[in-house]
Amino acid sequence: MTSNPGVGSIKRIDHIGVMVADADAAVGTFTAQFGFVTTDDWIEPDGAFRLVYLDSGDTTMQLVQPLTQGPLMDDLNSRGEGLHHVCFLVDDLDNAIGDNPTNSDPYVGGRGSRVCFLAERRHGVLVELTEP
Amino acid sequence: MTSNPGVGSIKRIDHIGVMVADADAAVGTFTAQFGFVTTDDWIEPDGAFRLVYLDSGDTTMQLVQPLTQGPLMDDLNSRGEGLHHVCFLVDDLDNAIGDNPTNSDPYVGGRGSRVCFLAERRHGVLVELTEP
Repeated sequence: MTSNPGVGSIKRIDHIGVMVADADAAVGTFTAQFGFVTTDDWIEPDGAFRLVYLDSGDTTMQLVQPLTQGPLMDDLNSRGEGLHHVCFLVDDLDNAIGDNPTNSDPYVGGRGSRVCFLAERRHGVLVELTEP
Repeated sequence: MTSNPGVGSIKRIDHIGVMVADADAAVGTFTAQFGFVTTDDWIEPDGAFRLVYLDSGDTTMQLVQPLTQGPLMDDLNSRGEGLHHVCFLVDDLDNAIGDNPTNSDPYVGGRGSRVCFLAERRHGVLVELTEP
């Protein structure tokens, strides 16, 4: 385990991840009740989860539906539906990570963005980082 | 209990509320590790909670520290630190509420904004509404 150096300056909040059991039902709720519009609907290549993006200005709402057993399904089972993570946009992902522990190497996630999750929560907040 | 009609179209996500036990410690973490800058630091007139706003583009991160016993302290004790609520900016708060149940009448919260919380979570998400 390395130390936790700073990960640099965030540009803004890229998206808020919301864990849902049924993305179609959640899209129905958020579009009908709050006027959201779906901008992307993506299934991870291995079929492990589905991400639906709802337009809401610079910061998007991302619905996360686990599709197979794994860490995300574990999160859904243990914590239930609700706010799951926040994703900070940084200039340079590799530079921002530095030797900060992450739960995997950076990978290409939804919307073709290069992302990674920090291994340790910050004051209970699961933090993802992405770059433009 | 009334029905849950739509609350209209959101303009964007105004802020994300993060429950923290110690706002000073959390400000230290988020400024040192992610380069956030504090823009507002406000204690509710009754002294029940403190709100610290961290600049992060159009969508602000709001740290919520309960200071006295009450519903927020109950949330902190039962759920711990972490993502707490999301606040949607709408054109007209009263129109957006309609006859949608809220947990109080609209009131003036942090940064002088008129706000209210919806009484029922949406897919586990505690939703606050505010207007410009």
